Amino acid sequence: MKIAITGKGGVGKTTLASLLAHLYAEEGKKVIAVDADPDANLASALGISKEEAEKIRPIADMAELIEERTGARRGSMGGVFKLNPKVDDLPEGIGYRLDGIILLTMGKMKDAASGCYCPENVLLRSLLKHLIVGRSEVVILDMEAGIEHLTRGTAESVDAFIVVVEPGQRSMQTAKTVYEMAKTLGVQQVFVVANKVRSTEDLHFIKDNIGGMEVIGSITFSHAVMEADMKGSSPYLFSPETVKEVKALKEKIEQSLHFTE
Amino acid sequence: MKIAITGKGGVGKTTLASLLAHLYAEEGKKVIAVDADPDANLASALGISKEEAEKIRPIADMAELIEERTGARRGSMGGVFKLNPKVDDLPEGIGYRLDGIILLTMGKMKDAASGCYCPENVLLRSLLKHLIVGRSEVVILDMEAGIEHLTRGTAESVDAFIVVVEPGQRSMQTAKTVYEMAKTLGVQQVFVVANKVRSTEDLHFIKDNIGGMEVIGSITFSHAVMEADMKGSSPYLFSPETVKEVKALKEKIEQSLHFTE
Repeated sequence: MKIAITGKGGVGKTTLASLLAHLYAEEGKKVIAVDADPDANLASALGISKEEAEKIRPIADMAELIEERTGARRGSMGGVFKLNPKVDDLPEGIGYRLDGIILLTMGKMKDAASGCYCPENVLLRSLLKHLIVGRSEVVILDMEAGIEHLTRGTAESVDAFIVVVEPGQRSMQTAKTVYEMAKTLGVQQVFVVANKVRSTEDLHFIKDNIGGMEVIGSITFSHAVMEADMKGSSPYLFSPETVKEVKALKEKIEQSLHFTE
Repeated sequence: MKIAITGKGGVGKTTLASLLAHLYAEEGKKVIAVDADPDANLASALGISKEEAEKIRPIADMAELIEERTGARRGSMGGVFKLNPKVDDLPEGIGYRLDGIILLTMGKMKDAASGCYCPENVLLRSLLKHLIVGRSEVVILDMEAGIEHLTRGTAESVDAFIVVVEPGQRSMQTAKTVYEMAKTLGVQQVFVVANKVRSTEDLHFIKDNIGGMEVIGSITFSHAVMEADMKGSSPYLFSPETVKEVKALKEKIEQSLHFTE
């Protein structure tokens, strides 16, 4: 199963991605969590310290690493992924392993005015397309805020997009754009998650204004999630109520999701 | 004066940009508000209806429009801006005019998997670099969430970055990255605005954890701003308390900012 968490900036994509990753790992699934945002903070939300996070070797180094280990001549990145790797084929030195989760990051921090993140997005798109994911394996992508990853087609090969919205027109407008673009990308399923819900009115507001999209679940506004961010720690440890809600959400996703192995 | 509002997704960049734009226009300044995010919503925050916003011709059309009007042979985009246009030279058909504000948008919505927004960013960088801004004119850029605009150098020619943070490590980490990159870009001044502050503890938390950066002001968490978003309307009309705070902030920026005409 490959899912991409997307939506406007600040709606709670990283929080949801980190909680789903921990919950799938908890039940024994092999989880690949991918931080697809150059302004990366999935590591922090997963509970990895800043010092450890800075040492992570990104997937941009993968071809190099394979070359180091095998002595094989370095070809194009596309060539590397045409091997259709399984999850277990991911080279050891890439990413970060914790509690059944492999965290992959996209690229190193670049210098100012040194260029865009197009090469890293192309690489990630190729990896996702060729990676063979078994029934007990889950790939969760925490996408960059906004819509450029859609015009880049980075996550075109996922089984579903989960669009996070909060009570407000702006995040819902982004969700509608995601929905339209997903169809063009060939992503068949798009689910909406209503986050930061403070009242039944908030939830009705979202359901009434989201167009034809399916709101698959909701998450209550949580001070504990904010406190986890203030402590630079994981919401999985700090927000038991939110974990409970995301667990229910996860079951709904599994019931609704049709995926091809 | 040219300033760029930047920061992590969801911290309140667009809200602040829209309020500063209205406040400068209110005192008779000529304001150019630039929505530099392809997932655009500055129009909505300024109080422009969705229907009107969809008709706005982006700066990506500028060369084409100049060609239409003057019959001049279409050169490279760079060529267009080498004229060092003044604000009054901006062609009439570009952007949207309301209440002393000219809203410029970067590019049209693209199709899924059709490519990145690199060309639009290059164009905007060139426009900003060459645009001559007088003492009674203010350019306010609402940047894309995150840090890719910094690796692209889109806003390298502004007088200052204003980085919006909220009480939490993740937005403050983004602010620190912005600060480092701004120095490399040659942007001399970076100010921090603390947003969504709920208590004096929140403000102390930000001041204590923001490193050597200057917190130039703070904005209290506001339900009225959230309601404005739910109504798809402008916080300028709905949030008098926040407007008052941003007015004080604006004065502080003016006192602290050194800019070259």
